[in-house]
Amino acid sequence: MSDIKKIAINTGGGDAPGLNAVIHGAVYAARRLGWEVFGIRDGYDGILEPHRYPNGGLIQLNRGVVRDISHVGGTILGTTNRGNPFRRVITAADGTKHETDCSDQILNFFRDRGIDALISIGGDGSLTIANGLAKKGLRVVGVPKTIDNDLESTAMTFGFNTAVSFATECIDRLHSTALSHQRILVVEVMGRYAGWIALHCGVAGRADAILIPEIPYKIENVANALKLRHQDGKPYSIVVVAEGAKAHGKDVTIREREVGKAERLGGIGEQVTQQLQSLTGKESRTVVLGHLLRGGSPTALDRNLGVTFGAGAVEALAEGRSTVMVALHPPHLAFVPLEEAIAKLRLVPPDSDLVLTARAIGIAFGDE
Amino acid sequence: MSDIKKIAINTGGGDAPGLNAVIHGAVYAARRLGWEVFGIRDGYDGILEPHRYPNGGLIQLNRGVVRDISHVGGTILGTTNRGNPFRRVITAADGTKHETDCSDQILNFFRDRGIDALISIGGDGSLTIANGLAKKGLRVVGVPKTIDNDLESTAMTFGFNTAVSFATECIDRLHSTALSHQRILVVEVMGRYAGWIALHCGVAGRADAILIPEIPYKIENVANALKLRHQDGKPYSIVVVAEGAKAHGKDVTIREREVGKAERLGGIGEQVTQQLQSLTGKESRTVVLGHLLRGGSPTALDRNLGVTFGAGAVEALAEGRSTVMVALHPPHLAFVPLEEAIAKLRLVPPDSDLVLTARAIGIAFGDE
Amino acid sequence: MSDIKKIAINTGGGDAPGLNAVIHGAVYAARRLGWEVFGIRDGYDGILEPHRYPNGGLIQLNRGVVRDISHVGGTILGTTNRGNPFRRVITAADGTKHETDCSDQILNFFRDRGIDALISIGGDGSLTIANGLAKKGLRVVGVPKTIDNDLESTAMTFGFNTAVSFATECIDRLHSTALSHQRILVVEVMGRYAGWIALHCGVAGRADAILIPEIPYKIENVANALKLRHQDGKPYSIVVVAEGAKAHGKDVTIREREVGKAERLGGIGEQVTQQLQSLTGKESRTVVLGHLLRGGSPTALDRNLGVTFGAGAVEALAEGRSTVMVALHPPHLAFVPLEEAIAKLRLVPPDSDLVLTARAIGIAFGDE
Amino acid sequence: MSDIKKIAINTGGGDAPGLNAVIHGAVYAARRLGWEVFGIRDGYDGILEPHRYPNGGLIQLNRGVVRDISHVGGTILGTTNRGNPFRRVITAADGTKHETDCSDQILNFFRDRGIDALISIGGDGSLTIANGLAKKGLRVVGVPKTIDNDLESTAMTFGFNTAVSFATECIDRLHSTALSHQRILVVEVMGRYAGWIALHCGVAGRADAILIPEIPYKIENVANALKLRHQDGKPYSIVVVAEGAKAHGKDVTIREREVGKAERLGGIGEQVTQQLQSLTGKESRTVVLGHLLRGGSPTALDRNLGVTFGAGAVEALAEGRSTVMVALHPPHLAFVPLEEAIAKLRLVPPDSDLVLTARAIGIAFGDE
Repeated sequence: MSDIKKIAINTGGGDAPGLNAVIHGAVYAARRLGWEVFGIRDGYDGILEPHRYPNGGLIQLNRGVVRDISHVGGTILGTTNRGNPFRRVITAADGTKHETDCSDQILNFFRDRGIDALISIGGDGSLTIANGLAKKGLRVVGVPKTIDNDLESTAMTFGFNTAVSFATECIDRLHSTALSHQRILVVEVMGRYAGWIALHCGVAGRADAILIPEIPYKIENVANALKLRHQDGKPYSIVVVAEGAKAHGKDVTIREREVGKAERLGGIGEQVTQQLQSLTGKESRTVVLGHLLRGGSPTALDRNLGVTFGAGAVEALAEGRSTVMVALHPPHLAFVPLEEAIAKLRLVPPDSDLVLTARAIGIAFGDE
Repeated sequence: MSDIKKIAINTGGGDAPGLNAVIHGAVYAARRLGWEVFGIRDGYDGILEPHRYPNGGLIQLNRGVVRDISHVGGTILGTTNRGNPFRRVITAADGTKHETDCSDQILNFFRDRGIDALISIGGDGSLTIANGLAKKGLRVVGVPKTIDNDLESTAMTFGFNTAVSFATECIDRLHSTALSHQRILVVEVMGRYAGWIALHCGVAGRADAILIPEIPYKIENVANALKLRHQDGKPYSIVVVAEGAKAHGKDVTIREREVGKAERLGGIGEQVTQQLQSLTGKESRTVVLGHLLRGGSPTALDRNLGVTFGAGAVEALAEGRSTVMVALHPPHLAFVPLEEAIAKLRLVPPDSDLVLTARAIGIAFGDE
Repeated sequence: MSDIKKIAINTGGGDAPGLNAVIHGAVYAARRLGWEVFGIRDGYDGILEPHRYPNGGLIQLNRGVVRDISHVGGTILGTTNRGNPFRRVITAADGTKHETDCSDQILNFFRDRGIDALISIGGDGSLTIANGLAKKGLRVVGVPKTIDNDLESTAMTFGFNTAVSFATECIDRLHSTALSHQRILVVEVMGRYAGWIALHCGVAGRADAILIPEIPYKIENVANALKLRHQDGKPYSIVVVAEGAKAHGKDVTIREREVGKAERLGGIGEQVTQQLQSLTGKESRTVVLGHLLRGGSPTALDRNLGVTFGAGAVEALAEGRSTVMVALHPPHLAFVPLEEAIAKLRLVPPDSDLVLTARAIGIAFGDE
Repeated sequence: MSDIKKIAINTGGGDAPGLNAVIHGAVYAARRLGWEVFGIRDGYDGILEPHRYPNGGLIQLNRGVVRDISHVGGTILGTTNRGNPFRRVITAADGTKHETDCSDQILNFFRDRGIDALISIGGDGSLTIANGLAKKGLRVVGVPKTIDNDLESTAMTFGFNTAVSFATECIDRLHSTALSHQRILVVEVMGRYAGWIALHCGVAGRADAILIPEIPYKIENVANALKLRHQDGKPYSIVVVAEGAKAHGKDVTIREREVGKAERLGGIGEQVTQQLQSLTGKESRTVVLGHLLRGGSPTALDRNLGVTFGAGAVEALAEGRSTVMVALHPPHLAFVPLEEAIAKLRLVPPDSDLVLTARAIGIAFGDE
């Protein structure tokens, strides 16, 4: 049995459909145990800059507040752009800026308010911060958020299915237009390190080629595959490109992922488009879906994964666990140590069933 | 290596989103191996009554024919209402009817045409027939089709995710209407033996109670849960009921599923509605979603599962397998013996994570 | 120029997509003129039973409150089931019930709070009440709400397009299922007096027959049309029936519409289903869409109509108008006297272009 | 009464949802009159290069062929990139290219086959060609296709509502992402000469600013409006830009629209993004929706408009009309002379109700 009476929840990093479902699940589960629940506004900003917010940066989360949010995109708690509280940038009175470690301020806040534990929902950046707070003594349970579905420690993350679903709907819409204009359309989707989104929406959307980071491509191979198709009487093509796709021979090592990094590799879609136009002689255009895939109402699957993760985080705390991340090891929830949970990427195995299926149905990956 | 040169495909039973994706996957994979592929029209009717069809009941399936079908609901091959070819009802010249075993006619057809194997996509009825033909010597690979997702031998079946997604969208739409009319809305969904659809769309759709066959309910418990909610200031409720839901104490044994059985248990939704109106004093209405959930464009997930099953069926044949069913044992495809594959239902375990989550977030199942 | 400083808004009657868009439009337009805006909770209940609500039944509506609501179904103000305040049912201490005219209480409330005018959004019931208050001296502008789109005084009402769109999506989904089961599916939609919804979703959804109140049908004609189609090789049919459809020879006069009337004619879909099954010998089923069509996020068209009506209501007040209803006389807004605005139904002219088109493309109306 | 026995249909120019609905409406209406109907493949290519097509470039269009197409995006007849048959580019045996007038070849084809009239569905390019053929004696009825909805002679064109609906859904999805990243998102939509799409999806999608060709903007005004909003506590903004939007003082004359012109003005979205980022100091990104808005299943409204236009075109021919274009003069169909029908653009009147409403609810147009 746990001695917890009061917990806090926050959300960090970029948008992903299902965040509110996690909050819903956590609040209902915690209230059922009689716990009080507070949401922290905008990551840790609500704690660190309480004067900027009504009610000192906290929201009391009872059932009424979260009853009708699990189907709504975004997060009712907000996120932050202010970065890591361990290295928070402070602007002094004279305008100079310097970094400060504000983690003690957070720990003191929790202690002063009698908040026993934190459920932190976020990506590797947010979970690394949560892990840092845990090392300093805070009871923490993490909930993973990566729309790219690329964490080794969990079989699935919420938001991914919604992104794939909407990307697929977009690709569906492009077929008749690509045909009527007799063009190659190159669709760029998210996936800096892993090609899960590109693979899934590419197969579902009947793409002719899919370029992902895990399978380096030669653009000539892609062009040849499309030319064969065009000679076969289909005068258009759709190519799905993950933003982290790499040409064969270029550097494909996975760089260290840095906390808070927001750099945009970008441009790969347009680059592929120009190369394909040049190699095939067919007019080509780029469609960049990135921003469209992070919002929107989560799919049923993502809602259920979200509420399960949220309720699971409360269950972990109730069982006395800490410094763990909620994960899915089908068909069951699991709790994995935070440190290792965020360490390893889950990449698309080049011999995975969906890749093999894609090859079997004639989709080119550009490697042969 | 396989000696296969020519295969046939058919689809049987009720509608499910993803059937065309299976056909797409199978045809592309088979054509890549150089095999010829024929579709049989309307189950086995195309073979047994060729005069009723153009081209003698067969469709030559090349890439062009199936290129743009994986996102389309229904099946391009049709299904049949004529039932089991082992017990086919024949109307004689004098109008009398009798049953005949037409299985030899099918086997002869395959032999005469040089068709080496059959991929049969269907529910337990269709797969039992396929198994019967296999016992008589035909090479057969089955692909399971049950929108209820209730086969023990595979972790997932196509169509289920589409059904859950659309059911969830429907429930989403009912909230504001239930509120403005201050009503209880009882939503009946499919699930004669297993409550997967009800459970998944109920949690995702923020239902207040979910009634499934696996957890016998007492209507008084359901009514009490709703009354508590109404007293708490929420003047409406949504209850999701699987068509096979059973009141506690009533017979809940799972009856033998019979081939071709189309009986409709029905009416449970309306019955629950009347009981809840009587017990809570709140105006109540029924919404029956059944027919709306079998059609429509398959979700990305169901398309990918479908093409993977289709390509997997070809792979099985290419590897020399027969009398097996394609199945998903995550994260890999598996091939299970046909006979056992269709024998056992997969029911919702009352202690499954999603049931526990549902309880944690205050959803009533009527058992307590 | 108007002397208005403070206004109130309420919503009445059943659910319709676009109510929140009207509120959004009215609040923004009023705030831009510097007016204060208050929302009354649950029709007039917020005024008549202030103790039941936080903040005495009023919500201060500033931009922040309504910023992100125009795309959300339902109404943030709630509606009521308590009926007409001119004939409000009061339960005395001894449990007896009697009707009381509470209109003075409302007028006094407005005067005491310095509220200068009311924008009332609702159906004929709500607008008749608003008209009654106007006759007693309150400045009132009405905004029409009827999902059936059946008001003579305006070319369009919000909610209708959303209802038609979702009904069409539902019918789209039924085609493959009706085909695979070789059934007649009868789809019942709203439309007690006017067949606009049935006509529009029936044509868009490729129905084979459409039965509407304005064109009395003979069921034999409908059955014959379907039989011709079945003989032509299409083994299924979809029939769309408005809930007010009437068989030829039955009473088809339009009954007086009474305030607050919630009677459900119902059952017509099931009745047609049974008759068609009997006459055609084909298995037939009913799908009742009613409850599914009132909720959900409004379409772009309904949102824009809603905000335009809301902003138009404020414009009317600013121009010194009262006792008028906002209406669309394409391409412009118009203001029609409240009394006449709600008096006359707009029925489907049997020779309207869409009816003629429907006949031209072979859709049966059962009258020939 | 008409003496017509046989007609042809073609579709030209870019993709627009509803083309197949027009074909459906025309074929059913013509078959009902007993006419034969043929579709020409790929504009006029089916006639001019019959050897490239099965069946000599014609498709016999009976009810079976078009029964289930009205809800499908694209056109079953295809379009062409080969341009104007009056100035067709021919490649000689020695590789040199020259222009030839192939119109006589088309007229001869019609005469030889006994085809009495042509229904041509297309944009100004296609209708100008049709008009040219009409001048040489062919009976022609045109059906307008412009997704931009910018023809003076008709109140609405099909495809527009679908484009606005999907653009609105996309903008809906961007809100939570723009918020969580605290960015300005600039959404570029179609509209080279007229801002109808931008205006409609901008209001429905709750944009903060809308830039359209008809209202020249000053980027400083736009930036100031967004800064006010950000100071008001909303840390993100969404700006919708029509591709033809023009900064104040730049050349805004409408250039002559040339047949077959496919030039892309483009880049306006990215340009506005960079200017706003520079002026507001807020990170800004561009989302280009163009290609996503031309495909997809048409909305109910566009389907009904499409079938009505298609059936109306047949009606026109049956009434003996020629050289006219089908148009909507609400609530009725009208037939306007082809020559004048395509001459004049319909622009957004700066004082139209939706512009005034947009201003009333605080949307900036950058002109003040």
